[in-house]
Parts: sequence; structure tokens; C-alpha cells
Amino acid sequence: MGRKKILCIGLVCLDIISVVDKYPEEDTDTRCLSQRWQRGGNASNSCTVLAQLGAPCAFMGSLAAGHVGNFALDSLKHYNIDISHVITHPECTLPASMVISNQTTGSRTILHSNSNLPDVTAQDFENVDLSQYKWIHWEGRNADEQVKMIQRVEEYNKTLPMDQKIIISVEIEKAREHLYQLFGYGDIVFVSKDLAQHFGFDSAPAALKGFYNRVKNGAYLICAWAEKGADAVGSDGVVIHSDAFPPDVIVDTLGAGDTFNASVIYALSTGKTMQEALTFGCQIAGRKCGVHGFDGIV
Amino acid sequence: MGRKKILCIGLVCLDIISVVDKYPEEDTDTRCLSQRWQRGGNASNSCTVLAQLGAPCAFMGSLAAGHVGNFALDSLKHYNIDISHVITHPECTLPASMVISNQTTGSRTILHSNSNLPDVTAQDFENVDLSQYKWIHWEGRNADEQVKMIQRVEEYNKTLPMDQKIIISVEIEKAREHLYQLFGYGDIVFVSKDLAQHFGFDSAPAALKGFYNRVKNGAYLICAWAEKGADAVGSDGVVIHSDAFPPDVIVDTLGAGDTFNASVIYALSTGKTMQEALTFGCQIAGRKCGVHGFDGIV
Repeated sequence: MGRKKILCIGLVCLDIISVVDKYPEEDTDTRCLSQRWQRGGNASNSCTVLAQLGAPCAFMGSLAAGHVGNFALDSLKHYNIDISHVITHPECTLPASMVISNQTTGSRTILHSNSNLPDVTAQDFENVDLSQYKWIHWEGRNADEQVKMIQRVEEYNKTLPMDQKIIISVEIEKAREHLYQLFGYGDIVFVSKDLAQHFGFDSAPAALKGFYNRVKNGAYLICAWAEKGADAVGSDGVVIHSDAFPPDVIVDTLGAGDTFNASVIYALSTGKTMQEALTFGCQIAGRKCGVHGFDGIV
Repeated sequence: MGRKKILCIGLVCLDIISVVDKYPEEDTDTRCLSQRWQRGGNASNSCTVLAQLGAPCAFMGSLAAGHVGNFALDSLKHYNIDISHVITHPECTLPASMVISNQTTGSRTILHSNSNLPDVTAQDFENVDLSQYKWIHWEGRNADEQVKMIQRVEEYNKTLPMDQKIIISVEIEKAREHLYQLFGYGDIVFVSKDLAQHFGFDSAPAALKGFYNRVKNGAYLICAWAEKGADAVGSDGVVIHSDAFPPDVIVDTLGAGDTFNASVIYALSTGKTMQEALTFGCQIAGRKCGVHGFDGIV
């Protein structure tokens, strides 16, 4: 058996990114500076970053057939991301997000499409050979099913010695009630600035303090806060911090959070301390903001 | 030989249309009400409408190879539009426009992409067998080349009896200096509200009066003005008008101008008077504004 892999479970979609130097007014015609098609989705982006960092990784998610599905699949293959757990739905449409990337400010405005693509289920997850993985990361989506998947891993972990257990991480990004149950299930829990603000917290340390009673015993809670860097807290209650590492010029923040998550996971999975992992996450996410897309971040 | 056809020369592109009920603020995430992919481009849209009106028609333009090019080609074939004059450039990318369609107001905000796709040239046009066509319409783009194409048709027309000459129409939509030479070349000249406003005219009759000295002897100049309807003037100086025929609910104005042009061309090509053609153009364009896309406008 080769090296154990990191598995990310969540969304893959198409991002069509139009770069402008000024956000368009309603009912006008604008010519973009450039336009590119990019495979997107949080878990899919995190795989791209893990692969570039040199971690063997796999993506699990639903894919539609057709032109756009093939585009996404080709891109996953291009980065050597294991696609054996990608589930294809020939009758569905791959979600496509339109992204307006303002090069002057780095802002990204996203128009998500609705998709008829079902999320992967606990039953799909039964087919995953857990012995291949050292870390499994869930992008919070269909949380009821995701909890069942995590419980399967918890059962499996009980059969293993301490140092061989699969690490479980979850990302809770959106303000949706059903996602909040995931707080209780990760060894590492990533909570977004957006969600923290939704709850009225105005800084990462405030969010960590406010949310920490929701996580399980011994878990780490991590919150990145854009140009303020990122903070983490574990069971000892000590808040660990890293400053941000902004590039000279911010050109594209799309996927910066996914880059941060992947880089933290990578660092922790290779035995780094939480302080080292936070710093590494902020460094790589900062580099990402200085380039379009994900190439050249390592 | 079958019935003579109408040829439209200009752009084909991909329109990705995201329908929203509120124009998105910068740096936010919005979920679309719906999203669809649609073949776009003025000349290509006009062909769609002509085909639906029952006119045999052909599209001439440049196309890229690959997923998106195939999407456009499949759609042209679907509507029985003759594609024998489509020129494929395997090394190029098809332009894709991102359209934000606000269902509440009917506004459409367009982000055009730059394309490396060259426009068709006078040399490409040499391959067109003019005897197959009764009408040729140019969407004003690479005007220097388009003038050469039109001159070829003018020469050809000199060899024909009056009632068999090919009718020449041009559309001048954008405020670009080099396009204005096209005013002098159409039997029918469509000028846009946008261009009229750019020149400081605040109504269709004012635009017709202001621009008429630019058209050739005996030509008709036509200007549609959204909810104000459309006006036309010929060599007798009499302004002909049709009111608009707005649908009960305006849901999508994208391509309404292309629909108007195609409907006027269709009506005139079947022997209708200019008054009848204007009214017909406004009726069909109005119906288009009441539906998404072009199906169900006839």
C-alpha cells in the first residue's frame, strides 16, 4: 500500500471568472479584462491545493455528465487528484458559478446556480475503503448524511491504535441551521468569518470563544479572518494566532479560504504544530491572493 | 434550386444567463433563480428568430472548436440554420458573455469576454454563392472588411433584374467610429437606441432625422426605441411609426433588438410594407420580452 491519502468530500462545480477593473453597474455592457474557466467548489479547490503541496489526495463528490462535467473531471485528473469516489449523474447539470473578480479591489462577487445534482450520501460513503485514508475533510453541505459518514469513521477509528486513527475535519461556512450540528463532529473544525459575523462576532478570537462550547472534547476550532490572519483554540483554551501574509498586490481572493483550509490540513497531517499550521495556512492563502487561480501558490 | 435564403453575418457566442430578482451587490454571494446557457451574438440570434418565423436562413461567422463551440454549433443545427459558411478556428476560444438578467426589472447586465476569434473576412465571403440568397444582413463589426463584402454584392446586383437583386441590410449598434461608414451601404440600415443616445438624440424620430444624411440614396433607416416602439424613414422623408407591444410581464429583454431586426427583415422579404414590417417587428420583439430565450415567440 502506498502513502495514506487525504479525502475531501463536498462540491465540485464550474467557476466562470470574469476579471474587471470596476464592478459593473446594472443594465450596462462591460468588456472583461479577461475571462477564464476554473474548476471550483470548496472541497474540490482544497484538493487542488493539497495536490500542489504534494499530498496524495482524493475528491469525493457528485458530478454531472456532459461538456461541463468533463471539463471538471479533466481538471481533477490534471492535478493527479484521485477521482475513484466521484459519482456521476448523467441526468444532472453541473452547477456553474459566475464570478465577477474585481482586480482593483480583489473583491469577488459570486452568482451561484441552483443545481439538480444530489450530494453524496452515507450510503455512497460505505464504498470508501477507510484504510486508504489518514485524514477525511467534509465541506458542510447535507449535514444529516455527513454526520452518518463521520460516525462510520468514528466506529472505524475505535478499532485502530491512537496514532493510526483517521483525523476528521469539517468546514462550516454558511449560515444554515442544519450545518451547525457539524461543530460537534470534527477533530478540527473550520468556521468561516461569514458565519462568525452572522452570529454577531466581530473578530476571530471572539468567534472562537463564542463557538467553542459547540465542538467536541479535545477538538481544535479554527477561524480565518481575511487580512486579520487566523486564530485557533484547543481544549486548553489558549488562542493561537497567525498574522496574514498579504501579497504586494491582491488580484484574486476566490478560493483563498479553501487554500487556507487545505494548507492547515496539510501541515497538521505532516506532524506540524497548530501554530506552525496556522502560519503556513496564512502564508499559502496569502500567496493565492496574489495570483489568479491556484497555480504558482507553492 | 430551393427557396432563396436570408444570410446573417456577424457574431456567435455563448451567453450564460443567470436570472436573479435583485442585482447583486459587489463582493456578495447570490443564488440565482435559474441559469441557462444560450447561443448568443446578434447575427446568430437574428437567425434563430428568422428560422422560427419560417424563413430559410444561414449564419456566417467564426467559431472556435471545443466544448463551447460544439454547444453553439449544435444549437444552430437544432434550429435548422444553414452552417455551411461557419468558419472554425481550432486554436481559438469562443467568446462567452455572462448575463445577469434581473427578472424584477427586465434589465440585463452583460459582461463580454474578449475573444481571440477573428471576424470573417471579405476573402472568406468570396466563397459564398450569392445566387442562393435574397437578403444579406451584416451586424456591424469589422466594417472595413464588411464594406468589401457589400461591394461584392453590389457588383453582383448590377447583373440582375430589379426584382431579383439581393437586399442589403446593416446593423450599427455600437458607438465605434469605424462602424459609421456602414450607414452608406445598406438598403435597410438599423441604428440602435444606444448609438442614437451616444450622438445626443433623445428619440427615434430625432435619430432618424440626424442620421438620415449618412445613408445612401433610397435607403430606409430604422431605429427601435425599447418601450417607445420603432420608427423608420425612407427617401420621401415621411417618418413611419409603430408603438411597442409590451407583454403583460417583461421577464427577459436579452436579444429583443435582434428579434426586432429579424422580424422586420422577414416581413420586408415577404413583400410587406415598411409600416407592416415595423408593426410586426414590434409585436415579435414584445413577445420575446415576455419569455426567457427565443422559444415561443411565434
